[in-house]
Amino acid sequence: MKIKNPRTGQFYYEIFPPSAKELKGKTDLMREAQILWAKSGINFRIQALQAWKVVIEEFKDDLIDALCMDTGRKLETILEVDFVFSSIDRWSNISRHFFLKTERKPSFIPFLEIEQEYEPYSLVGVISPWNFPLFLSLIDTIPALLAGSAVVVKPSEIAPRFIEVLQKTINQVPDLLGVLNFIEGGEETGEELCKLTDIICFAGSTSTGQKIYQSACDNFIPVFLELSGKNAVIVTETADIERATSAILWGSVTNAGQSCWSIERIYVHKHIFHQFLSRLVAKANQLKLAFPNMDSGQIGPIISEKQVAIINDQLEDAFRKGAILKAGSIKCEELGGGYYFRPTILTNVTHDMKIMTNETLGPILPVMAYTNIDEAIKFVNSSQYGLSGAVFSGKEVEAMSIARLMKCGAVSVNHAALNGVLHEGEISAFKIYGIGGTRTGVSTIEKFLKKKVYLINAKDVKNS
Amino acid sequence: MKIKNPRTGQFYYEIFPPSAKELKGKTDLMREAQILWAKSGINFRIQALQAWKVVIEEFKDDLIDALCMDTGRKLETILEVDFVFSSIDRWSNISRHFFLKTERKPSFIPFLEIEQEYEPYSLVGVISPWNFPLFLSLIDTIPALLAGSAVVVKPSEIAPRFIEVLQKTINQVPDLLGVLNFIEGGEETGEELCKLTDIICFAGSTSTGQKIYQSACDNFIPVFLELSGKNAVIVTETADIERATSAILWGSVTNAGQSCWSIERIYVHKHIFHQFLSRLVAKANQLKLAFPNMDSGQIGPIISEKQVAIINDQLEDAFRKGAILKAGSIKCEELGGGYYFRPTILTNVTHDMKIMTNETLGPILPVMAYTNIDEAIKFVNSSQYGLSGAVFSGKEVEAMSIARLMKCGAVSVNHAALNGVLHEGEISAFKIYGIGGTRTGVSTIEKFLKKKVYLINAKDVKNS
Repeated sequence: MKIKNPRTGQFYYEIFPPSAKELKGKTDLMREAQILWAKSGINFRIQALQAWKVVIEEFKDDLIDALCMDTGRKLETILEVDFVFSSIDRWSNISRHFFLKTERKPSFIPFLEIEQEYEPYSLVGVISPWNFPLFLSLIDTIPALLAGSAVVVKPSEIAPRFIEVLQKTINQVPDLLGVLNFIEGGEETGEELCKLTDIICFAGSTSTGQKIYQSACDNFIPVFLELSGKNAVIVTETADIERATSAILWGSVTNAGQSCWSIERIYVHKHIFHQFLSRLVAKANQLKLAFPNMDSGQIGPIISEKQVAIINDQLEDAFRKGAILKAGSIKCEELGGGYYFRPTILTNVTHDMKIMTNETLGPILPVMAYTNIDEAIKFVNSSQYGLSGAVFSGKEVEAMSIARLMKCGAVSVNHAALNGVLHEGEISAFKIYGIGGTRTGVSTIEKFLKKKVYLINAKDVKNS
Repeated sequence: MKIKNPRTGQFYYEIFPPSAKELKGKTDLMREAQILWAKSGINFRIQALQAWKVVIEEFKDDLIDALCMDTGRKLETILEVDFVFSSIDRWSNISRHFFLKTERKPSFIPFLEIEQEYEPYSLVGVISPWNFPLFLSLIDTIPALLAGSAVVVKPSEIAPRFIEVLQKTINQVPDLLGVLNFIEGGEETGEELCKLTDIICFAGSTSTGQKIYQSACDNFIPVFLELSGKNAVIVTETADIERATSAILWGSVTNAGQSCWSIERIYVHKHIFHQFLSRLVAKANQLKLAFPNMDSGQIGPIISEKQVAIINDQLEDAFRKGAILKAGSIKCEELGGGYYFRPTILTNVTHDMKIMTNETLGPILPVMAYTNIDEAIKFVNSSQYGLSGAVFSGKEVEAMSIARLMKCGAVSVNHAALNGVLHEGEISAFKIYGIGGTRTGVSTIEKFLKKKVYLINAKDVKNS
């Protein structure tokens, strides 16, 4: 399977998906290794992950190089790698607390006492996307490992260059080696994985997510899906326009808009619309494409070639229906074999344009004025998606009352787009954003645990 | 749709499943009513359920009469109705604690504070089985209502007589009326329900459960399935034989074995096998069929006619392969038009007999000797099912170490079969017992809640 470089459009790498038989052999061994892993206890597992962290640190440059080649961008790559380190530490803390031994406790039946225990699923399958190849391949993997499961990860075939480096780091941690495997492959390998694992975690497009749900159903296993978004922000009349424009721009164009929590719809009160727009346009025009070099600017290439056509189609549809270009370009620019979009601001947009209803995954900012807050809320909630959103307001009471009416799993107040990384709260699926549990907070660990109770006839046992 | 009386085999009742259009109209109204229900807060919802409890108490005799006709048995019916009362109280307490206002708390990012909130799914669908028609129609319904959802329940068409009475009680509680509906119908109505609800809870057979999973997948909604079991008990050499035989007999023949947690496999240490068997047989022979009247004995009829053929087939298969009858009958007895099995004890059983591998749902007790505990554990865990189990031992350490090795969601120690009702612990699906969360403990309420976080730029908000 040949892989393109997103900066050059050239085939530059090849991956070798395992055969169904090889995959079966591998997962059989992992199931064996998992028995000891689960038994060894939380402190042992934390130590193994900490040892891994040290090795990743040694390979940090190689990992960053590979990820830069995978994605064509640098700044987000460095953040991504750094985040893995803090992530291991924070998950270690959460899981250490979670596994503190539970005491036996009374039940409502006088002679019965209760003891709660947890048993991890043996083998967790993770199918992760190309937009943050490292971070999203680990977001479920780390808590699953700490829960005591073995984990087999299949990152997207669009950005698979980092797998080789990461697998090298795993090979240096004997305690982890048997229970963690990164495998290369495409859709076929992903489907095979659904047949071999006890539970499947997927993040990616809605259409592939629906296929994964079907595979999980066919194989009668639980499934966790995190899919598309069309995240909106509301900017009220009282908002700090300087702060709002900077944060929203950042929340829309980071990683060239290729994040599930990227802001893709901007609703601004009509009284500040023009002022907001002019500041947003001015700031957007200051950003540069990261071309010819990764350091030349802030906006990297579109990683998935398939996405280029989707974004172009959404733009064309918008312009045909009357949208006006205020910054950026009317369509994708091909530079040196890669595909780029400048931060692109549209006005005169309506909700019958694809750009306002479908996930874009590009640095496109459609801005619409609203008359009153009821209308703005209605616009926000008209979407079929419900991952995240944001609100900017100068008044806390106003901000929170708006936030509470937005139908999505996370709302940022007076900032944008950090919802995927805060373990102090838990986010779950709204509307067709997904199926199943959260990926932040302690419930993430519980996803990978079967709950088992002992109902003990205490009177009898104590007599013995 | 005509319904048979399980004691007479006669059609005695008729149900009228709503058309797809009627059902749609009903659920549309429920969705509207749910908005206020969710907003009204936990104390309001608790009050509404307490008011309902008072009305059910008034209709208690009618409800018991209807359930007796549905199931042909009385003792379990009275317990079932009583359990509903304690269940409402206990869920009220659990949910009151759960909804205590959460405070804003810091995150690991200095300027960001976090607030957690919950939003109930609008409309929960419950599809419940015939073996405990009332209890199992409410096991998810009560916590879902307390969570703030509206709930539409479709009990099994095999035991639907109680629906009319229960709906009468609901009609007398105006606050509940809009958000709780019991509907009559069979498989078709169940499928329709999957298209109209946001989340579906099903308890019943594995084959129907797999169909429900497919419907949930087609409609892209979350699903919770509780399916079949083949629950085993281990009796060690040190067990109190009097206690063990009484408890196991009770755990096998209550409700004529028609419980998902009924004990269906008995493994006894070879040194006490004969002694155990003779006491078990003696006690089993003392039990009488509840015929000609419901008060004539302890063992009521088989409620589902379909199940009669399944049990007969399992027995025939066992005898053909060498099983020996020690008590009870070689096949179902037809008495007055109803179908009955006496407590039936088999020895000389092997794991290639259906009676040792497939769910029976009848008062059949296959007993097998084991040589050492490793063998016993292997026998227990050889099943494809993993709901519950039990262990009897005179030594606490031995009992707990065996319990910990049994692959199932709940293990009773020195008693049998109360696992479905203890909210102090949480039980989740092992193996193909099911998909999704627990039905006991606080997580049951969480099943019906979407988790939403507010990520608040505290610095900014406080400046305002």
